[in-house]
Amino acid sequence: MSSAEEIAKSAKVAFEDSQLIPSAERVNALRHIHKALEFNKAEILSANREDLQAAQIEVDAGRMSDSLLKRLHLDKGDKWDSMLQGVLDVADLPDPTGIVSYAKELDDGLELYRVSCPIGVLLIIFEARPEVVVNIAALAIKSGNSAILKGGKESNRTTQLLSKAIAAGLSQSSLPETYVQTIQTRAEVSSLLALDHYIDLVIPRGSNSLVQNIQNNTRIPVMGHADGLCSVYLDESANVDKAVRVVLDSKTDYPSACNSTETVIVHESLLHSVWPVVGRALLEANVRLLCDAPTLSALTSLSPAPPNLSLAAPSTPASYTTEHLALTLSVLALPSLPAAIRFINAHSSHHTDCIVAESQLAASAFCRGVDSAGTFVNASTRFADGFRYGFGTEVGISTGRIHARGPVGLEGLVIYKYMLRSTDGRGHVVSDFGAGGKRYKHTDIVAASVPF
Amino acid sequence: MSSAEEIAKSAKVAFEDSQLIPSAERVNALRHIHKALEFNKAEILSANREDLQAAQIEVDAGRMSDSLLKRLHLDKGDKWDSMLQGVLDVADLPDPTGIVSYAKELDDGLELYRVSCPIGVLLIIFEARPEVVVNIAALAIKSGNSAILKGGKESNRTTQLLSKAIAAGLSQSSLPETYVQTIQTRAEVSSLLALDHYIDLVIPRGSNSLVQNIQNNTRIPVMGHADGLCSVYLDESANVDKAVRVVLDSKTDYPSACNSTETVIVHESLLHSVWPVVGRALLEANVRLLCDAPTLSALTSLSPAPPNLSLAAPSTPASYTTEHLALTLSVLALPSLPAAIRFINAHSSHHTDCIVAESQLAASAFCRGVDSAGTFVNASTRFADGFRYGFGTEVGISTGRIHARGPVGLEGLVIYKYMLRSTDGRGHVVSDFGAGGKRYKHTDIVAASVPF
Repeated sequence: MSSAEEIAKSAKVAFEDSQLIPSAERVNALRHIHKALEFNKAEILSANREDLQAAQIEVDAGRMSDSLLKRLHLDKGDKWDSMLQGVLDVADLPDPTGIVSYAKELDDGLELYRVSCPIGVLLIIFEARPEVVVNIAALAIKSGNSAILKGGKESNRTTQLLSKAIAAGLSQSSLPETYVQTIQTRAEVSSLLALDHYIDLVIPRGSNSLVQNIQNNTRIPVMGHADGLCSVYLDESANVDKAVRVVLDSKTDYPSACNSTETVIVHESLLHSVWPVVGRALLEANVRLLCDAPTLSALTSLSPAPPNLSLAAPSTPASYTTEHLALTLSVLALPSLPAAIRFINAHSSHHTDCIVAESQLAASAFCRGVDSAGTFVNASTRFADGFRYGFGTEVGISTGRIHARGPVGLEGLVIYKYMLRSTDGRGHVVSDFGAGGKRYKHTDIVAASVPF
Repeated sequence: MSSAEEIAKSAKVAFEDSQLIPSAERVNALRHIHKALEFNKAEILSANREDLQAAQIEVDAGRMSDSLLKRLHLDKGDKWDSMLQGVLDVADLPDPTGIVSYAKELDDGLELYRVSCPIGVLLIIFEARPEVVVNIAALAIKSGNSAILKGGKESNRTTQLLSKAIAAGLSQSSLPETYVQTIQTRAEVSSLLALDHYIDLVIPRGSNSLVQNIQNNTRIPVMGHADGLCSVYLDESANVDKAVRVVLDSKTDYPSACNSTETVIVHESLLHSVWPVVGRALLEANVRLLCDAPTLSALTSLSPAPPNLSLAAPSTPASYTTEHLALTLSVLALPSLPAAIRFINAHSSHHTDCIVAESQLAASAFCRGVDSAGTFVNASTRFADGFRYGFGTEVGISTGRIHARGPVGLEGLVIYKYMLRSTDGRGHVVSDFGAGGKRYKHTDIVAASVPF
């Protein structure tokens, strides 16, 4: 048996064995992991400094970007403290398992319960930021899944020690030792992607190419967190002040986030009213504008000329399919709401799109017609986030349409099973039903949890 | 653009356009499809007779099984009538879309709604039975998805006319003409499996090899309905009469169904009490028994000898991983409930497994410890079925653990989106929140549907 197969098999066994351990023990494990991290803080941050030194050499040699290096840094601002607080926050969230979502009496003394349960073994692959190993391990443990984690090689020293602390915390609980395992190499990932018998879900967190590469190389389901090509549409009924506020926040609050806006669509009727005010505010905020001919000429013909007008330039077709992740915005004018909906459906990544409109009718049509995980009215696309939605934390933001869509909280890491119990004196068989026999009752049972 | 790409693109456009058509129109389309089927009954059944004649030649030549030929037959018993009734039944089911499952006020005048919606474009591939084209088209239309259907080549003439009737019915509604399309060739399927930009979910209904082949050849999510390796465990606390009734029904009610039982596990303490009674009943019912040494010797040492004792034979390791789909049952003895749970988790297809037990503790441990879509107590595995569960109808039975598990009803064909609305006078932006700013409220909103 290969090493990858041993890892996968022991993860499956750990998952199966954990199903008979009370869920309170998962909370217990999280508290011990919190303590182990605290206890080993100095050692972990020292390893992180080594990772940073190695990364600085790569940056100096032009082989690594400065932004990647920054993401490695674990001892910056409140990053360490919030990572630790996150473990306790997840521990305190409501248990997502054991919840009954459907319950029927099929016959006298025959009760059916659909009850939430963990998915099984998760393979989680992420890049750069080492604190993700702790966040994701906490979510997996809380939801009752076992996990195999693979971080980026740049943060190897840090994640090894974080994993050691996780293992130390787990060993203080009655959960199996192999409940959370860490792997180091891409070769191991490749081998694991073939083991659909043991691994139930792959969660890649990183670039679009990482997600697609994994989707192309496994038949295990993939919950992808890929790119965010979000847009704001300024409807003919748009209020100018809301348009300025929403567009500016959507673009400039945190340009490298996936829920930042990359495209603004202007209704043609606004070219010489709302658009110049919005455009001027964007230029003042140093946003580079890639405009189609009508929106560009509306800006260049303004008098007095807006500041930073040199930041406005003609767009190309590629502008509207590019995730800029920077202070750059693609702009175009369209003649109608239906045209805007069609454009967004064809060009967006189905992440989050917003309409600025006073018309309720337009808002309603936009929210239904735009096929994205989030459809917003007069609100910044930046609201698309698990914490802001009230989930406490998030696994990521899914642009898929199966299982979980949009910001994914703990609910995205569970599925359900059906428990059926016969309580009569004879046991239940289907041959008693049908032509000439019994009929199914299908009456509702009120139950928050399974009574056996 | 290839023909497959045109089909996929027009399915996507049809789906997107349909999002602004009221859901009542989907019900209207189903009623027209019902009429069109009725109107064209003679022509359709005549085409079905041609398919049957062609199939008979294949059967006579030994190139097709008799059971496959039987599945082609549309004018047998109440098959035609129940197919038609099914269309009306699906039309009358509650609308699975537009249902709010999470609603929060994030701030004064900022409302978030998570609302169920269709997945998008479904590619559905099935074998043999022509009525499936009508069942599945009805489910797709009712849930608001557009669909591309591919039937087995054996039923080509029949499914072509069924598809024509579906198109005729659709044309009487305001839904797009390309809402449901049918394709004929495997080459088209191969091309479509590459078009993840347009197709959102593949649903193969058929053999395990069909499902695996598709999973290996696409990065589109697959909702697989593969094999059913179900088992019944006779606990040491089992009641003998329940054991006989449940095992017999699970094995003999419909042996070729995926929810039939293939393996019986006997607690060692029952080898000379409950097992001989169950074994005798199975042999009387002409069930071939593939037994391990202890369960076989318990039968052969009986006096008087049971009837049909020659049907009992030694098992091999392969017996316990085989879906017999016939009056054949694999049997083994194990020393404990934990051993039985481990055996089932390692050998079953995670479909449906049953414990026969009087002990509540044993039943509870079994239901939690066995990692299958259905875990049953004193009830036949044959109950694992969408109609019996009360879903009205089913898309199939999923042995996956993502999105939908077990019998899949209309709920399995929907996902959700998040609609966020700002109703204050300024529009909402995230930069107003956080350090020194506003705090998120996250108060519950009571709403069954989205109020805009």
